[in-house]
Amino acid sequence: MESIVQKRLTAEFAGTFWLTFGGCGSAILAAAFPTLGIGFLGVSLAFGLTVLTMAYAVGGVSGGHFNPAVTIGLWAGRRVPGADVLPYIAAQVAGAIVASAALYVIANGQSGFEPGGFAANGYGPLSPGQFDMKAALLAELIATFFFVLIIMRVTAPGAVAGFAPIAIGLALTLIHLILIPVTNTSVNPARSTGPALFAGVEYLAQLWAFWLAPIAGGVLGALAARGWEARSPA
Amino acid sequence: MESIVQKRLTAEFAGTFWLTFGGCGSAILAAAFPTLGIGFLGVSLAFGLTVLTMAYAVGGVSGGHFNPAVTIGLWAGRRVPGADVLPYIAAQVAGAIVASAALYVIANGQSGFEPGGFAANGYGPLSPGQFDMKAALLAELIATFFFVLIIMRVTAPGAVAGFAPIAIGLALTLIHLILIPVTNTSVNPARSTGPALFAGVEYLAQLWAFWLAPIAGGVLGALAARGWEARSPA
Amino acid sequence: MESIVQKRLTAEFAGTFWLTFGGCGSAILAAAFPTLGIGFLGVSLAFGLTVLTMAYAVGGVSGGHFNPAVTIGLWAGRRVPGADVLPYIAAQVAGAIVASAALYVIANGQSGFEPGGFAANGYGPLSPGQFDMKAALLAELIATFFFVLIIMRVTAPGAVAGFAPIAIGLALTLIHLILIPVTNTSVNPARSTGPALFAGVEYLAQLWAFWLAPIAGGVLGALAARGWEARSPA
Amino acid sequence: MESIVQKRLTAEFAGTFWLTFGGCGSAILAAAFPTLGIGFLGVSLAFGLTVLTMAYAVGGVSGGHFNPAVTIGLWAGRRVPGADVLPYIAAQVAGAIVASAALYVIANGQSGFEPGGFAANGYGPLSPGQFDMKAALLAELIATFFFVLIIMRVTAPGAVAGFAPIAIGLALTLIHLILIPVTNTSVNPARSTGPALFAGVEYLAQLWAFWLAPIAGGVLGALAARGWEARSPA
Repeated sequence: MESIVQKRLTAEFAGTFWLTFGGCGSAILAAAFPTLGIGFLGVSLAFGLTVLTMAYAVGGVSGGHFNPAVTIGLWAGRRVPGADVLPYIAAQVAGAIVASAALYVIANGQSGFEPGGFAANGYGPLSPGQFDMKAALLAELIATFFFVLIIMRVTAPGAVAGFAPIAIGLALTLIHLILIPVTNTSVNPARSTGPALFAGVEYLAQLWAFWLAPIAGGVLGALAARGWEARSPA
Repeated sequence: MESIVQKRLTAEFAGTFWLTFGGCGSAILAAAFPTLGIGFLGVSLAFGLTVLTMAYAVGGVSGGHFNPAVTIGLWAGRRVPGADVLPYIAAQVAGAIVASAALYVIANGQSGFEPGGFAANGYGPLSPGQFDMKAALLAELIATFFFVLIIMRVTAPGAVAGFAPIAIGLALTLIHLILIPVTNTSVNPARSTGPALFAGVEYLAQLWAFWLAPIAGGVLGALAARGWEARSPA
Repeated sequence: MESIVQKRLTAEFAGTFWLTFGGCGSAILAAAFPTLGIGFLGVSLAFGLTVLTMAYAVGGVSGGHFNPAVTIGLWAGRRVPGADVLPYIAAQVAGAIVASAALYVIANGQSGFEPGGFAANGYGPLSPGQFDMKAALLAELIATFFFVLIIMRVTAPGAVAGFAPIAIGLALTLIHLILIPVTNTSVNPARSTGPALFAGVEYLAQLWAFWLAPIAGGVLGALAARGWEARSPA
Repeated sequence: MESIVQKRLTAEFAGTFWLTFGGCGSAILAAAFPTLGIGFLGVSLAFGLTVLTMAYAVGGVSGGHFNPAVTIGLWAGRRVPGADVLPYIAAQVAGAIVASAALYVIANGQSGFEPGGFAANGYGPLSPGQFDMKAALLAELIATFFFVLIIMRVTAPGAVAGFAPIAIGLALTLIHLILIPVTNTSVNPARSTGPALFAGVEYLAQLWAFWLAPIAGGVLGALAARGWEARSPA
């Protein structure tokens, strides 16, 4: 018999597993398949659909964050109690790491496989389009700002029930459509951490950026969203 | 005048026909069209939309499984009575076979057509990306685990009405975005059986894998989903 | 002051204009743009979104058919009174022809433009993939069968409000993902008639097929859908 | 403490920032990435999803126009008071300009970046497909006519709650699927103004067209939509 706490952490583990397995998996396994590959567009869709599907599945259990920047942002926005933050982040990072390991096993089933970047995030020489650190930080900051702003708003009291997973999942698809060439798109420190462990030490050395910028953006986005909610005189 | 049983089995037949005709049909007819072809991304979208559309159309009649791994998984999750399992599977396999025959007739309307793999599933030399058996089994297991987990949850009592076909259909799209290079994506033994009959004996010899792994994954996914549903003290 | 009849026919005119302008327009203007073109996948999405958007916009006015095969199918399914059939078809065909004329003007704004097939439907030498007449008729019959079956079901009494345009629009996207190589995808005699007038006499000579097969499929699909609706003992 | 007016203008600023950052950003950063780029299809999806996501997020605050042609159209359709028009347009244009500046900073983080057209709109030699001015004006007029017509209808009293952002966002995706080769797709004078400031004087010289045609189309579309709403005898 599981406690409610266990259920919530299991939900965050499973959701972040699915996000990493599906999003990074589509990038590693399918994006560059000769002629028929899904490209950045397919990867963008895959990332968004991981969140859309698991937010419908377990959003009612844990809130469906699957992302430390979202958990910290929603804490800053007074939607999540402080006691939840560290356990949620631990479950999310664990989910991303286990998913990356599973992907590594599957990818190694292809003869001649080399991990390369393994869908890890990076800037400068590790950016898909060779964007520098400043561009990477600004892009991640803006994208996570809007991501958490949107999440705060579509889960606010009074929102029409049922549509939040569509808005949130497709927001993540949109963000990938813009940013994959810049940083391979993080906006999610857990998703960044899993693949970096398999991609090599130079990716790990940049991991700080994909914790810092998404969390900063998420906190600011949550605070901005609160501006629309506060009572005010006309 | 049809009985309710007939209506339900007809719904499963029609839905699995549409899944196979639309998903495999888009792969056979449109994926590799020169320059303008839809690629794996288009095939992924097609598979998902077959389920989205027919789940809206006949989900209220039969539950809209269209997939033996889903039927068996939902039986393991105590959503489907045991007496339904074999008739449902028979209707699903029949639908997939008739759809494959219809596709075969249409595809033969193109001069010079050769069936090739005919969108059948495979591993090793029959995998689109030459992934070995172990990778194929693991990938199918994980994907069907999450597919049935998501289905269990979005059709659970208390879910907001109307959104389940979106979540389920787009979950299938997502799974194809990840796995087409590995196995051509099954997660559905009926969908695997129909095309294999037209693709040749070497595909039939691998068919066991696409019954075993999806059913195992589906059962485990349903059991995992029940963990979130069981009553528990805080 | 418009009468209710005028409003309904105007809605069908506008919706079929949008279907033809958007679907055929994306094919003519954007599908084969060098390197960045949207391909058959983008055209499939465009056709579906024309119906999704205008079904939300004017579905409450006219039912949102935008397609003679749908109107005749729904009449066979006892959803539409016989007196509506011919006026609806006239409005639909008029909308498709005016949209094709508008597209022709825009396309001629590109120096060196030649109409070519102008997104018209065809079989044999006029099929994008050179599929013969038998394959074309069978494919159109099956696709329209399911299209109207889905429409009948998702607009049946008891369906959850609001989702029908999503299911219907994405069904049309799906059908295009499968069939563009076979016939350029009709399932809609009005959409076939407009472009054929600009594509030339050889397309007009095949137009019968894209009235016959979609209407036959639509009628059969509507009758099949009624089988699920009829009262029956357990 | 913000006043309600401030909240509404901030919402329009943020939404138009997101529309321009996401839509034009995907075009500038990701559309033409070698081999894996998202093409016009990905850009079309990105534009639509900016509106879908922010309409869910702040539609309840400001109405979620993010577009002067929509604001003026809805004013003509008697949905928006005249006093709102100029402040809304100012907020929208400011959002688009700031977003373009942010994009410019990010894009300059790639060595060797040259702004080129910077996703600005154009006709004649500045049209992606070299379409002349007449074609550009007609295409923008028709597209904005339907865009505002759809907006008017899906936000009309009696529409099912929650679906409007889906219909409106995907309408914008559809419009981009058709028109990017013709004008790079405006239907939004604010979105046209921001990038033009960075693309150079020849784009600024054509900016009048992307204010004139969308506003004219939007006003006409709103008036057409009112025809379906007016009371009338049977």
